[in-house]
Amino acid sequence: MKDVFILGVGQTPVGEHWDRSLRDLGAEAIRAAMADAQVEQAGGLYVGNMLGGCVNGQENVATLLADAAGLLPIEAWKVEAACASGGMAVRAASLAVAAGACDLAIAVGIEKMTDGSASEVTSGLATAADQDFEASHGLTFVALSALMMQRYMHETGHRREDFAPFAVNAHKNAVTNRNARFRKAITPDEFARSPVVASPIGVLDAAPVCDGAAAVVVGSKQAIRPHHKPIRIAASAAATDTIALAARGDILDFSVAANTADKLFATTGFGREEIDVFEAHDAFTIITALSVEACGFVPRGEALKHAANGCFVPGGCTPLSTFGGLKARGHPVGASGAYPVGEAATQLRGEAGDNQLSKARVAMTQSIGGHGSVAAAHILEA
Amino acid sequence: MKDVFILGVGQTPVGEHWDRSLRDLGAEAIRAAMADAQVEQAGGLYVGNMLGGCVNGQENVATLLADAAGLLPIEAWKVEAACASGGMAVRAASLAVAAGACDLAIAVGIEKMTDGSASEVTSGLATAADQDFEASHGLTFVALSALMMQRYMHETGHRREDFAPFAVNAHKNAVTNRNARFRKAITPDEFARSPVVASPIGVLDAAPVCDGAAAVVVGSKQAIRPHHKPIRIAASAAATDTIALAARGDILDFSVAANTADKLFATTGFGREEIDVFEAHDAFTIITALSVEACGFVPRGEALKHAANGCFVPGGCTPLSTFGGLKARGHPVGASGAYPVGEAATQLRGEAGDNQLSKARVAMTQSIGGHGSVAAAHILEA
Repeated sequence: MKDVFILGVGQTPVGEHWDRSLRDLGAEAIRAAMADAQVEQAGGLYVGNMLGGCVNGQENVATLLADAAGLLPIEAWKVEAACASGGMAVRAASLAVAAGACDLAIAVGIEKMTDGSASEVTSGLATAADQDFEASHGLTFVALSALMMQRYMHETGHRREDFAPFAVNAHKNAVTNRNARFRKAITPDEFARSPVVASPIGVLDAAPVCDGAAAVVVGSKQAIRPHHKPIRIAASAAATDTIALAARGDILDFSVAANTADKLFATTGFGREEIDVFEAHDAFTIITALSVEACGFVPRGEALKHAANGCFVPGGCTPLSTFGGLKARGHPVGASGAYPVGEAATQLRGEAGDNQLSKARVAMTQSIGGHGSVAAAHILEA
Repeated sequence: MKDVFILGVGQTPVGEHWDRSLRDLGAEAIRAAMADAQVEQAGGLYVGNMLGGCVNGQENVATLLADAAGLLPIEAWKVEAACASGGMAVRAASLAVAAGACDLAIAVGIEKMTDGSASEVTSGLATAADQDFEASHGLTFVALSALMMQRYMHETGHRREDFAPFAVNAHKNAVTNRNARFRKAITPDEFARSPVVASPIGVLDAAPVCDGAAAVVVGSKQAIRPHHKPIRIAASAAATDTIALAARGDILDFSVAANTADKLFATTGFGREEIDVFEAHDAFTIITALSVEACGFVPRGEALKHAANGCFVPGGCTPLSTFGGLKARGHPVGASGAYPVGEAATQLRGEAGDNQLSKARVAMTQSIGGHGSVAAAHILEA
């Protein structure tokens, strides 16, 4: 594929935006990314969004945002891949540029979850699971993740409190991120005492329901201007696994994470040790643990041991969630795959402020949908 | 862009499939297209679907179909652009191949509308409109189209019955299409007497609610094998307009149709007179009239005059709906943009049987979403 570069990033704060609509948030992120890239128009707009239909009563979201951001008559469509929608929208934009369909494209992830009631959001999220064989029987999204965590604890002998380091790191990093939902550190003790949502998952294992939008402007080599700090998309990958958790031979192998990581490393030739930051899909602590194992950063069953040893904090072997991750920056589902791409690019540009890593030349991002049934992943290089 | 070719087509019959699910229909169309192309796997699956979330309680539809069709761990995501979703999925697949991400890709359009109640489907379809400023005030999809038809009649002096030729042609062509929903001819008199749904739109102006799936396998030049009858995608285009009808200066200029057509003709160098078949988005007769005018096949305000003169039937200047179109083959919304691409390719392959046109070398397809707020269009060449 032809080289594609990130030329601009934009985000709204993640939060409960009672005074803003889907179109307001999406347009704000798009305009911010375009201002950052100093571009006035693009050849395509690719919108990652999951719950527009279920929660906002709004499909045709890409047209809505093209209109709200003043980009008409731009090519625009929505990309949906459950909680991986935002990351997949980045891939769609990259494909458009690599295909030569345009020199500049915009990817935006957007979700406005607080428009829905708790039950609308819960059933909306369950549409990522198998409706015929799982969701219709009452299995919610958190319940499916709880089954995976239960099994992980059974196989490894770990206790619930051993998952604390992932959440503690995420919250700590979010304190200095002005776009984060929770700018508040937590202790391992608070983690252990947090109320159980679906055993063994507690409140502090889980990413919050919230609103947000994040965008990137991507372009070809020809689109780079002197004012840009281009970040190369060194590789981009996507994969799927069975939609029903029950259909998997091994519910802990997290093959979508492994497949996309393997493709990224094979394409780029990078080794795992060259990844300076990994913005993983930490929707639940169990998902983070499975991700770092499946992607080959640590051996299977050893994620919690390495977490306890400080492997995943800034300065560790593979820093995770450097702006707070889904856990603490927040998880507006269709947007959650787009935030990490912008955050990783910001690290590689050396513009991460208080969240800046001392070494940040190569970054990996991964977004996962449907408890491991679909994934999009990228490696970025300064 | 690199050349991309259609190498296989597959469809399910359009109908009320009470005994089949979303996954069954989608997998059937995918496997049919793959069998036609004689391929066993592809590098990407791009799924056009609109109402999975609203009507079927199922997002993550691309993973569902990848799984059901036996294609795991293939890259897969859903493309949503209201009723243009299927056509946009074909564009997504083409971009993936043109980008060099894969040599073979599959686009499928799928909708299972009969799973929903009439009110669920009506509000589901209204999600293509502006939820904040139109749909929430009770404007349904048919009501919005009725406003356009009312205005057209006001400007041109035409009567409701003058729209008959579009529906009569569509129904006549559907009689010999074994995949059509309505294999039944209608007369101009029946058209004129059909009950009014939203004045002036009558039942026989409108495409039906139904289920269906249509797929194409697309590939690079390198993917062509001796058994293929490759149809070249000579050009592909997409555009948007305001999501709210009320925001347009002129609600009859149908600028998304004009924009996409202009791009196609500019890219290919073809003239309008070289189009042997135009599979247009005939969801309502007014939409057909506006489409042929906006695309430049006839001057503005003259579509009905040319229709009365037989311009749009087989053997006419620009044959439309040669397999029945959305009106009579049927309009499973997320699939409706994919059927025409397969049908046009079938015409160009000379395999249309009783529906075969005597001359079919260049075809145009266009699918429109949200009463003209988004469009995808293609020109295919034998």
